Amino acid sequence: MHDKGVLAIVSGPSAAGKGTVVRRAMNIAAEIGQDVQLSISMTSRGIKKDEEEGVTYYYVTRERFEEAIAGDELIEYNCYNGNYYGTPKKAIADRIERGTSVVLEIDVNGADQVVKLFPEAVRIFVMPPSMEELEKRIRLRGRETEEEIVQRLAKAKEEIPRALDYDYIIINDIIEDAAGDLLNTIVAEKNRSCRKKWIIDEVLGK
Amino acid sequence: MHDKGVLAIVSGPSAAGKGTVVRRAMNIAAEIGQDVQLSISMTSRGIKKDEEEGVTYYYVTRERFEEAIAGDELIEYNCYNGNYYGTPKKAIADRIERGTSVVLEIDVNGADQVVKLFPEAVRIFVMPPSMEELEKRIRLRGRETEEEIVQRLAKAKEEIPRALDYDYIIINDIIEDAAGDLLNTIVAEKNRSCRKKWIIDEVLGK
Repeated sequence: MHDKGVLAIVSGPSAAGKGTVVRRAMNIAAEIGQDVQLSISMTSRGIKKDEEEGVTYYYVTRERFEEAIAGDELIEYNCYNGNYYGTPKKAIADRIERGTSVVLEIDVNGADQVVKLFPEAVRIFVMPPSMEELEKRIRLRGRETEEEIVQRLAKAKEEIPRALDYDYIIINDIIEDAAGDLLNTIVAEKNRSCRKKWIIDEVLGK
Repeated sequence: MHDKGVLAIVSGPSAAGKGTVVRRAMNIAAEIGQDVQLSISMTSRGIKKDEEEGVTYYYVTRERFEEAIAGDELIEYNCYNGNYYGTPKKAIADRIERGTSVVLEIDVNGADQVVKLFPEAVRIFVMPPSMEELEKRIRLRGRETEEEIVQRLAKAKEEIPRALDYDYIIINDIIEDAAGDLLNTIVAEKNRSCRKKWIIDEVLGK
């Protein structure tokens, strides 16, 4: 027997910096040789140059993607301008079984869905240090209109209390610290007794 | 508001190497500047040279110790050749309140007692890699008679399945790795949502 990987669901309000923290954590994991990978989505759009099958996405035909939807093979999926994007269950389950930990960045509503499918998943909420800082980050991105900014902040105010439904709350003040905390948490969770049951029989030679 | 410290209860069968792993973890914590300290016991015996009040022990008179017993100030206590040794509740509670994490090394039976007093404590079970290795370590210590060794191994066989009552199981194969895992776990647990509730109101400016 060997350790299974940890499925880490990373969520939090938009502009809290989930993506940046997760990507930095993946780089640190690679640097220190921790077997932690980002969940890879499946898409029906064509592969672009500089992209790689099984790295940027799993590339499939539109027909295959719709077959996956029909066969309930996806945790969640969306359609952006005619192309499907989704998270395949099996790709995650296989890697966890092999001992690779998988990080799945998903919005607060999607997270509940994943936990139903993977009850042993670890839920991590990335928290902005303050509403002021969150607003500053949203304005810095400059993607939204004034009205959209107001909506985003209102949505964040609703989402932040849901942090209590998560196992861990990581404050994204300094990205490097938050990324380190995220990776630490995943590594520590590998030793959770629910994931280590097998060692008892092994030590006792059963 | 600020983070509270984590109380880490480290237990496991004797000769699993709890003490060595804990001491090494404390050294690493000091090296990297993590605020984690070993629980300090109270004793009625006199201070020896090279010992320091509040570092090696809290030194009190026999009368004061018996007053502490009567006042239920101790988590547990023992008496070795006329001297009392015990773990004061308040010293642990105060440090956790200040944000210092405290590691309490205690036997499997003592651990249950501590959890009753500190329900948010994190229980960590230090597991030997195998019974063969455990026997090797007991023999290496050379403290026990053949009969005592047989008794110890039988006791370990009973204690090992109790690892399932713990939050984490850390295998002590390579001390350096086990010590790193222990420290990692304590640091990660500081972000447990049950310990981070306060941040939600703070971020929302309530």
